[in-house]
Amino acid sequence: YHLNIGQPDIETPEIALNAIKNMDRKVIEYSHSAGFESYRTKLAAYYQKTGIPVNTEDIIITTGGSEALIFGFMTTCDPGDEVIIPEPFYANYNGFATTAGLTVVPVTSSIESGFALPPVEEFEKKITPKTKAIVICNPGNPTGYLYSQAELEKLRDIVKKYDLFLFADEVYREFCYDGAIPFSVMNLEGIEENVIMIDSVSKRYSMCGARIGAMISKNKEVMAAALKFGQARLSPPTIDQIASEAALQTPQKYFDDVVSEYVTRRNIMVDGLNNIPGVFCPKPSGAFYCVAKFPVDDAEKFCQWLLEDFEYEGQTVMMAPANGFYATEGAGKQEARIAYVLNQDSLHKAVKCLEEALKVYPGRI
Amino acid sequence: YHLNIGQPDIETPEIALNAIKNMDRKVIEYSHSAGFESYRTKLAAYYQKTGIPVNTEDIIITTGGSEALIFGFMTTCDPGDEVIIPEPFYANYNGFATTAGLTVVPVTSSIESGFALPPVEEFEKKITPKTKAIVICNPGNPTGYLYSQAELEKLRDIVKKYDLFLFADEVYREFCYDGAIPFSVMNLEGIEENVIMIDSVSKRYSMCGARIGAMISKNKEVMAAALKFGQARLSPPTIDQIASEAALQTPQKYFDDVVSEYVTRRNIMVDGLNNIPGVFCPKPSGAFYCVAKFPVDDAEKFCQWLLEDFEYEGQTVMMAPANGFYATEGAGKQEARIAYVLNQDSLHKAVKCLEEALKVYPGRI
Repeated sequence: YHLNIGQPDIETPEIALNAIKNMDRKVIEYSHSAGFESYRTKLAAYYQKTGIPVNTEDIIITTGGSEALIFGFMTTCDPGDEVIIPEPFYANYNGFATTAGLTVVPVTSSIESGFALPPVEEFEKKITPKTKAIVICNPGNPTGYLYSQAELEKLRDIVKKYDLFLFADEVYREFCYDGAIPFSVMNLEGIEENVIMIDSVSKRYSMCGARIGAMISKNKEVMAAALKFGQARLSPPTIDQIASEAALQTPQKYFDDVVSEYVTRRNIMVDGLNNIPGVFCPKPSGAFYCVAKFPVDDAEKFCQWLLEDFEYEGQTVMMAPANGFYATEGAGKQEARIAYVLNQDSLHKAVKCLEEALKVYPGRI
Repeated sequence: YHLNIGQPDIETPEIALNAIKNMDRKVIEYSHSAGFESYRTKLAAYYQKTGIPVNTEDIIITTGGSEALIFGFMTTCDPGDEVIIPEPFYANYNGFATTAGLTVVPVTSSIESGFALPPVEEFEKKITPKTKAIVICNPGNPTGYLYSQAELEKLRDIVKKYDLFLFADEVYREFCYDGAIPFSVMNLEGIEENVIMIDSVSKRYSMCGARIGAMISKNKEVMAAALKFGQARLSPPTIDQIASEAALQTPQKYFDDVVSEYVTRRNIMVDGLNNIPGVFCPKPSGAFYCVAKFPVDDAEKFCQWLLEDFEYEGQTVMMAPANGFYATEGAGKQEARIAYVLNQDSLHKAVKCLEEALKVYPGRI
């Protein structure tokens, strides 16, 4: 059971697939370096519809959310600068920071609090003259935690006080559960020039392979500088933009079905985990991940052992050890991230498999 | 007449367009970070067929040739290092070098010699302890110059003597004229571990918008490090890889027709330019660009004037001033790059238009 990577099994909306199949272009040409204007305009309308104030000129289409964050880092920071990120965080942020020559400074959130925002003082302790930005992922990968408006306003106050940039990776916006409504950093008042939102079609439309993202900001200076990086790499992929533009017409029912499916999956997984003696897993309100704490010596060894030395009814479970999501040495040693991206039956079986594994794992504590 | 950008009007091979239209995937998933193995294997076979010794494991598929060069720079150089590039060179190399924190050190080639490789001593003069690599584009953008095997062997000797890396951007390989056969840096003996080839489907199949390139090297350490950058950005675009894999089956007739068309276009443009009094344009053997020297005070002003203050029969000509392709301040001041990517009739008219323009341009010298 592959619970280790965030590649959903959900189908891409038909309207996006059809746009590709019906493409009538004879030449696959470059688009504008900021992306097709028609796409940016429709994307702005999508944000406005969800109450996020974004105009066409606030958007640069990028090659995945990855490139958006790299452009953002390279535009706002100099090599040697520091960015503060609540951990556990998406491990690839390390790679993007390295690319831009930045040092990641973690602020640790705890599994006991469900990975809520650490206290403001913890952030302030880490701020130095080299600190240029705070980076969050909301809803979060790997935690699934959804920051409340109150938490985001605390971040706003820090950002304002120290004149930092606030990056928010909001690619899981559509994946919020139990009636929770995500609050975008673009709606934080008083730091409009400091906010950079990262977005992507990868998860929203199950189009990870399309590599279409966006960098969004009201800061015209930042956007002008980012466009220069955009021009250097010429353009984001053309066919994939056509698919992404079409995907904006995806009917609401698609999302309703997906959310309903993920809620069921989350409940199977999280409730199942918490029913295993010694396992603790906070129930997240967003994304399709959870981080669980296991009664083991070392989650990395446990995951390795599951893969190499264990099977139950011919199957095993693959998880991502959480130490890879922490920048602090030794943190999250008993934790692992689970992506509940499989069908319900498989998830039931995976929980059972984990339960049996913990009965016999030699490093159980 | 848009002669200022290298976006060919040539149609993408039908086999590639059909692969997209007939795609039967339900989910647009990530590919492997190094690209689909099936694509890499077929790509290796394509190289082997053209006499270039490349295996599947020597290839990382990238998001355009741009990303390949960035991965290459970040893998082989440290911030502050220097790369030597014969100028004029593709202006975006500056952006890629900046991204990797590198300084570009130019070695100037001359229009009088048709932009042949500058003498070895010119390179040696520029080598410092910080020099990590030499970068060439062959056949060249913006010059269209095709380096001979003898020239490449001179580069090989420098690379070997100083233990440098040699990057070769060979994306225009299929565009060689008058019977000229391109010699790949992958075939240089004795520096197999030092060579990194950059490739792309953009020009070969007129698929600039697909954003599929490749970084190729026999150096396993370099490739392992580059793959880490590849993993950080997850994967190159999926649909575009499907199109690129299909494009490898493009019949030879497609290339024969394209080459024949470009030879005619080149002759119209270059012969036409040389027939204008005071204009000099060496006849290049490859790519679809030429750099011409004009009897004007400043080619940038001339290009600007063409755009804003001139028309002939309701038309004007857009060219790229060559100063953007030189790193040396003031170099190439009378030169401009022309991309002969329009149909023959338009090129005839563009030449006529330029001829008339030079009769009345106030900065003519």
